Amino acid sequence: MELLNQHVSIRKFKTQPIAYSLIESVIYSGTKASTTGNMQLYSVVVSETPEVREKLIPHHFNQNVAKSAPVLLTFVADFNRFAKWCEISSANPGYDNFLSFFTAATDAIIVAQNVCVAAENLGLGICYLGTTIYNAREIVKVLNLPKLTFPVTTLAIGYPDEIPGRTDRIPLRGIIHKEKYKNYSGLDIKELYSFKENLESSKQFIKENNKDYLAQVFTDVRYKKADNEFFSQKMMEVLREQGFLM
Amino acid sequence: MELLNQHVSIRKFKTQPIAYSLIESVIYSGTKASTTGNMQLYSVVVSETPEVREKLIPHHFNQNVAKSAPVLLTFVADFNRFAKWCEISSANPGYDNFLSFFTAATDAIIVAQNVCVAAENLGLGICYLGTTIYNAREIVKVLNLPKLTFPVTTLAIGYPDEIPGRTDRIPLRGIIHKEKYKNYSGLDIKELYSFKENLESSKQFIKENNKDYLAQVFTDVRYKKADNEFFSQKMMEVLREQGFLM
Repeated sequence: MELLNQHVSIRKFKTQPIAYSLIESVIYSGTKASTTGNMQLYSVVVSETPEVREKLIPHHFNQNVAKSAPVLLTFVADFNRFAKWCEISSANPGYDNFLSFFTAATDAIIVAQNVCVAAENLGLGICYLGTTIYNAREIVKVLNLPKLTFPVTTLAIGYPDEIPGRTDRIPLRGIIHKEKYKNYSGLDIKELYSFKENLESSKQFIKENNKDYLAQVFTDVRYKKADNEFFSQKMMEVLREQGFLM
Repeated sequence: MELLNQHVSIRKFKTQPIAYSLIESVIYSGTKASTTGNMQLYSVVVSETPEVREKLIPHHFNQNVAKSAPVLLTFVADFNRFAKWCEISSANPGYDNFLSFFTAATDAIIVAQNVCVAAENLGLGICYLGTTIYNAREIVKVLNLPKLTFPVTTLAIGYPDEIPGRTDRIPLRGIIHKEKYKNYSGLDIKELYSFKENLESSKQFIKENNKDYLAQVFTDVRYKKADNEFFSQKMMEVLREQGFLM
């Protein structure tokens, strides 16, 4: 519990490599998590060599965390392996559709989170790279991902070379709904986000970005409507290219 | 590590209720996991009363595990709360699109998996209900889920009333790809799945379903093409209804 509660993302790693047996061991713990119908609809690509990492990093927008990590783990929603098993078993796979993609994506994300917990338990640090879905097409190419696979997230992983402070969270009552969803009033929202808005780091963030409100940093700088729409369309196209929207 | 490695899904629970403080505590651990841009794009609906559970259970196809659990936790991809915060902050949210849905879904699934680990650490048992996305429309109605939210998975949770055997997994070498994805030959697949195919439980499964091969039980009985296509279309419709495909 303490391990989970003390999680903090690491964005700066030591150059020290990770023993391959450790990488196997954390992925092993990943595969022990629940998986839909015990189909194990995922693969994990372990990229350690500079050659491959250097090809991946631009598609993670050259973030320092991606450059710093000695290992990049790409978590792949994978119906390819299962469909191949069907084909050699006189069974007709019907997984070239959106539901199957989402099912495999869920499986892969569950594995990723178990890998995080296992890695932190061994003194490693991790950071999710959400950029994976933005540039799935390019990552598919670098990693030779076949039809019926799709990269859903990436973990940068290594030995921490920083001790970041814990990140703020909104109060738990803002997350939990009893019995049914209770929608938020303006006042609810104001209360839930006031702690975050009043952090020194938030005020700094607003100032640096020349905004009036913290939320504007998200909508106007970090997660913009035009970008979201551009990458939504691209992601759909890649889902089609990968055979998940037949 | 042992906790992760010994995971097994529980499908039969004691009637013993779970103290609400424990539920809060495992969800708290869930919220400590990584989240995109610290936006916390999720909500958790805790359904304990018979009234609400009885309305949810049919949409989980009346599975015994759903009936048996004293608590159902529905994990919701949630851009509603964040968008409301934007609106009261003179910020224009641009999250009515597929990328934003998938980002929030990832956040919600990461929380769910941390909740599993935390719950098992407290002696509780869990089972994922993959049926959530099949009947998202109906679950949206029961739980009053507003626009910009979508239920992505459900955990049945309670004190275990069974000690199931560990589930088989294919060998780790079938999951891990070094540097890039290495596609599978027919022989690779044969080797990877031979242990599973030769289990007594698999042989029983084949016999019960009157099939020749284990894979056929998946394609012809459990996860059929026609069902997958039907529920793919329905899921897309519900994403549109919920405002994620504008």
